[in-house]
Amino acid sequence: MPYNKINEDIITQLKAIVGAENVITSKEAMEDYSHDEYAPDWVKHYPEAVVKPKSTEEVSRVLKLASKEKIPVTPRGGATGLTGACIPVCGGISLSLEKMKKVIEVDKENMMAVVEPGLTLKEFYTAIEKFNLYFPPHPGDESAMIGGVIATNAGGARAVKYGVIRNFIKGIECVLADGTVMEVGGKLIKNSTGYNLLNLIIGSEGTLCVVTRAIISLIPPPKAIMTLIVPYNSLHDAIKTIPVIMANNFIPMAVEFIEKDVLFVTEKYLDKTWPCRQGEADLMIILDGESEDEIMKTAEKIGELCLANNAIDVFISDNKDKQAEILKIRSEIYEAIKQHTLEILDVTVPRSKIAELVDAIHVIEEKYKVWLPTFGHAADGNVHTHIMKAVREGDNWKETPEAEWKAKYHLILDEIYKAGKDLNGIISGEHGIGILKKDYLAMSIGEAQVTVMKKIKRALDPDNILNPGKIFDL
Amino acid sequence: MPYNKINEDIITQLKAIVGAENVITSKEAMEDYSHDEYAPDWVKHYPEAVVKPKSTEEVSRVLKLASKEKIPVTPRGGATGLTGACIPVCGGISLSLEKMKKVIEVDKENMMAVVEPGLTLKEFYTAIEKFNLYFPPHPGDESAMIGGVIATNAGGARAVKYGVIRNFIKGIECVLADGTVMEVGGKLIKNSTGYNLLNLIIGSEGTLCVVTRAIISLIPPPKAIMTLIVPYNSLHDAIKTIPVIMANNFIPMAVEFIEKDVLFVTEKYLDKTWPCRQGEADLMIILDGESEDEIMKTAEKIGELCLANNAIDVFISDNKDKQAEILKIRSEIYEAIKQHTLEILDVTVPRSKIAELVDAIHVIEEKYKVWLPTFGHAADGNVHTHIMKAVREGDNWKETPEAEWKAKYHLILDEIYKAGKDLNGIISGEHGIGILKKDYLAMSIGEAQVTVMKKIKRALDPDNILNPGKIFDL
Repeated sequence: MPYNKINEDIITQLKAIVGAENVITSKEAMEDYSHDEYAPDWVKHYPEAVVKPKSTEEVSRVLKLASKEKIPVTPRGGATGLTGACIPVCGGISLSLEKMKKVIEVDKENMMAVVEPGLTLKEFYTAIEKFNLYFPPHPGDESAMIGGVIATNAGGARAVKYGVIRNFIKGIECVLADGTVMEVGGKLIKNSTGYNLLNLIIGSEGTLCVVTRAIISLIPPPKAIMTLIVPYNSLHDAIKTIPVIMANNFIPMAVEFIEKDVLFVTEKYLDKTWPCRQGEADLMIILDGESEDEIMKTAEKIGELCLANNAIDVFISDNKDKQAEILKIRSEIYEAIKQHTLEILDVTVPRSKIAELVDAIHVIEEKYKVWLPTFGHAADGNVHTHIMKAVREGDNWKETPEAEWKAKYHLILDEIYKAGKDLNGIISGEHGIGILKKDYLAMSIGEAQVTVMKKIKRALDPDNILNPGKIFDL
Repeated sequence: MPYNKINEDIITQLKAIVGAENVITSKEAMEDYSHDEYAPDWVKHYPEAVVKPKSTEEVSRVLKLASKEKIPVTPRGGATGLTGACIPVCGGISLSLEKMKKVIEVDKENMMAVVEPGLTLKEFYTAIEKFNLYFPPHPGDESAMIGGVIATNAGGARAVKYGVIRNFIKGIECVLADGTVMEVGGKLIKNSTGYNLLNLIIGSEGTLCVVTRAIISLIPPPKAIMTLIVPYNSLHDAIKTIPVIMANNFIPMAVEFIEKDVLFVTEKYLDKTWPCRQGEADLMIILDGESEDEIMKTAEKIGELCLANNAIDVFISDNKDKQAEILKIRSEIYEAIKQHTLEILDVTVPRSKIAELVDAIHVIEEKYKVWLPTFGHAADGNVHTHIMKAVREGDNWKETPEAEWKAKYHLILDEIYKAGKDLNGIISGEHGIGILKKDYLAMSIGEAQVTVMKKIKRALDPDNILNPGKIFDL
């Protein structure tokens, strides 16, 4: 172990930097900081201390100290991640950004906001709403913090038309492993001034620096939104409609595909009703635009394209409450099956290959006699397959014996990742690598890339202080 | 000098790799490879050999040889750059990608093209047109090659709605300094699988790798396009209209601002007529959309917003030939003043700060008694100021004595870059750094970023073989 342990002297120094009330060392109080939203028990790990800086300067001083003393530092946002990326697997400091949550500025003229990393998405959406501005990305859990969604380059359903987090971050202030404060980018739309460090930092999962401020571009809110639910007898037909819609120059805000079985489970869990029961799989298409009339015209044209591609029917909802209910059912599928879920995957393939990937997953289901509920972002090629430790029997769950699911888990994972790779896909479209996927990184993207990533990591953080054990092992 | 010279033995080995006909060593034949589109004489530099590989494998073998023999390699595309980035300032090999120009695939379903780096933009636009697909970025000179526009992250006028080159490149195959072939990304819309090497490579000006293949996302062509010319008595009023247009959720394809004096020079040069003579400065707004009717409605609403913000008049052109003529005048301003231009700048500031930057430039003009023709991409904050070695006297040019412009050149440059910096801008929005701007890099973005960039460069190219002397000095 190349790291030093945190001793009393270091605790005293940390307290001097951030204040005694912002250093936690009791095991009980640190439990929350030992896991993320979805990490299985075997990934759980306690930090030696939780440290909550209140300013960039404090972050810098903590990192200088950690660098000098060779203590690992694991940055932490809302801990809504699904790959264990904020778990301090090497001990040391859990650096929680929760106290840095200011909205520093909302600049109407440039349509940009400047915020601190500990602000939650929910707080951010609320803060900009009163300026009549809008932030399209919606990675799902609104308790995620800005720093965290930058660290994973989060995506979500609304990425089809507007793109992922990466497309909206224009500037970052961050602190490097040695405590250097670095500003990158600005309120700028174009930038060809040297290497693009901004995009290197976005998605680097806290392994290259700690983000302490972000400049985020915004758009005016859509004037109207409409949701289409389109049932099909075959997922293939559903998926095949999407390139047709896009080629006709209709770019929806979101296009989701959902197989019916998992919808029925969620309906029951939430005691809510999905708009239609026919068919095997649905597309959920969200449109936005300048007016109700304009979107209705688009919705009708898209509906025709769907029907021409074997859709059974088209349900259009322009009622706000009904749309919210549909979205809630879609968003809570995750909650409905969570207690029986081992891991949520986010394999991403070219848009045209989704149906083939889902076919491959059904073959794997048959082979291992498991249920692998699958749904996802159809226009992005981003497929969420859930590896479960229970199966459905009618309306009930039947737990799989631990020995059995443990025996199957990695075999299933291997096969799904291989299926994605064979379709020219990758292992993560939006969740990141963290701990859970790092053994598959080289298989997914090739040794050459992993070697380059490690060289960059070593060049910027030679003592491997920042979030060690994530993405890859050095 | 840490590099070795190319000797006869190395020439023999290079000929064995790419074929004797693809190795040039005569000084006369190498003249073309000693400069780019705009490099002043003092930047001109001959390579020791021009090498034209025909495949990725040949690129890899050339780089392996160059690495072993410590010979610098400067990749070269269409040489339409404006910063000297493709000039082999340390001698060695000029690696011209001109023979790698295949369109490998146009994938209609995923709306992506796979192409080689030596394909020109003009050839690329033509190749995808027959598939009814469209590539929005238009950096200006259509003889630019794909590899070059990736190397500088080129921009252009159409970036307002659709973004710059970076936004369209989804995958790259490249060769690292040691000859390793690396594939990054794919036909993928979402990707959070490790560090984002794709965006690190885009804009790295051939200093980190040689791009040998690119996967480029495309869109369906706009069904209709319309051009508005809006004259104002004050550039301030023109600039102030832009946030108003954007806040009303109208996102034009392009928004250019042009001061009248430079337009008149270009009219005369081309013997063509600009739509209006009134006012001091014009906005040129290009709209695209689903139908003529839809765009006309938008154009009328934008026209009203302009008039409410002190526009003198609004000229709307939906005639294809007339629009082409307007665009030609705008595009050829550069040609009209080129022979008297020392350097074309591309300072970029927040959109709201353009008018203040242009004011500062007018003050500098007064101070140094020079003409600094300025126009640019108004919605991007990307301002093209030209440093001249002549002034206008009525309809004629008057050459400035060499001693005088030489004395003023860097003083003017210093002041313009400082003015941009004071407005939270950067020195390059789309041209890159190359040789011409590297002395200003640290001033523009801070020492911390430059230090990180150098660490990355050293980590990936420890012998500094790839395009040495560009962006920064190691």
